[in-house]
Amino acid sequence: MAQHDITQVKALTFDVFGTVVDWRGSLIREGLAFGAARGIQIDWASFADDWRGGYSPSMNRVRHGELPWTNIDALHRMVLDELLVKYGITSLSEADKDYLNQVWHRLTAWPDAIPGLTRLRTRYVLATLSNGNVALLTNMAKYAGLPWDCILSAELMQHYKPDPETYLGAAALLGLRPEQVMMVAAHKGDLRAAQAVGLRTAFVPRPMEWGQERTPDLTPDPAFTVHAVDFNDLAAQLGV
Amino acid sequence: MAQHDITQVKALTFDVFGTVVDWRGSLIREGLAFGAARGIQIDWASFADDWRGGYSPSMNRVRHGELPWTNIDALHRMVLDELLVKYGITSLSEADKDYLNQVWHRLTAWPDAIPGLTRLRTRYVLATLSNGNVALLTNMAKYAGLPWDCILSAELMQHYKPDPETYLGAAALLGLRPEQVMMVAAHKGDLRAAQAVGLRTAFVPRPMEWGQERTPDLTPDPAFTVHAVDFNDLAAQLGV
Repeated sequence: MAQHDITQVKALTFDVFGTVVDWRGSLIREGLAFGAARGIQIDWASFADDWRGGYSPSMNRVRHGELPWTNIDALHRMVLDELLVKYGITSLSEADKDYLNQVWHRLTAWPDAIPGLTRLRTRYVLATLSNGNVALLTNMAKYAGLPWDCILSAELMQHYKPDPETYLGAAALLGLRPEQVMMVAAHKGDLRAAQAVGLRTAFVPRPMEWGQERTPDLTPDPAFTVHAVDFNDLAAQLGV
Repeated sequence: MAQHDITQVKALTFDVFGTVVDWRGSLIREGLAFGAARGIQIDWASFADDWRGGYSPSMNRVRHGELPWTNIDALHRMVLDELLVKYGITSLSEADKDYLNQVWHRLTAWPDAIPGLTRLRTRYVLATLSNGNVALLTNMAKYAGLPWDCILSAELMQHYKPDPETYLGAAALLGLRPEQVMMVAAHKGDLRAAQAVGLRTAFVPRPMEWGQERTPDLTPDPAFTVHAVDFNDLAAQLGV
């Protein structure tokens, strides 16, 4: 089947939140430190889940034209402002809120991510393809040490994944045909949308993305090009 | 003067052709090797100058609406096709022409560029801000070992420098105000246009950009924020 032919692949594009970085663990860690410094005692795991939970609905408001194009920093801030009310946090200055919102720029990688990317980069062009905005992804790469060749974002197409414009736009910016690009993600919807417009796909499940209590869909799907347990395994399977 | 205040600068954006990479030396070197392999004897320095000479006029055709948005790979190819006629080169296959056109993806850096960028990167976000397209800049960075944090290109704004949209668009994608960004270039027109919309500026003259026989304008201009003899000097002057 064409979707399993990797001989033409020149570039890998990566989902980032959950696939490359542990957003939940990072948010809890930062939240605990932030709260300790300011005397705020709340359940930061619940706060993290609520914040992430506001993400898809807010992107849908953009997708459906209820909001004009709004980048993720701004959407995160809209959700944060609601959560500060919900959690009864009333003491924060504007600088505090801005610092807290920028926690998404300070997420850290799953343990296999940097070694795996470093191997993969010797053969492939590595790019982000995230709904996160360019500044967020650039700052995160610098903070977490992620060795990207190129920062690509839904912001550049002004369409959020899984809209087809994102995958086709990324391939075009890389000067490649869709079959020369492999989308790497822990989320099946992202991969299915990429595959529908001709990209190759690598499913790298992240069982701990939502913590101990919530298990994402980890079952293999034979439609995907590659199934890998982590980025080192992905590198090995791609012969790097 | 505000334009000399560097205390707010967070990111440096770099012109690439001529400022970071020696396009002329790279084209001559590649042309000689290409010609030797195919029995083509022409003056590759003259060919390089003619190719680069077609660059501004072709961007102006886009700027004035004579052509729809066309990226630099495609503009380079249009100029190349004319030069192959001018130089009487009739033996090339489509694959040969494509390989030759991609020479712009294989340019190499001035000797101080990588050490200087490596120093600067410890404190600043480093991004390209070139008229070259994203694929070209990404492939060049990989080939030449340029340590960018982010690839920004006129292609993302669909405006060529020195249009103001390019500088303002780059600052916006980096999540910064214009005064938080410093444009680095060997070309005064680029810097003046960046300065006109509020960016800080660093002039790094490259006396050998056009070879021995043609000297670009190297005189200082007190309006620029920083004058540096090379990227190591720029790092030193910025206190890195």
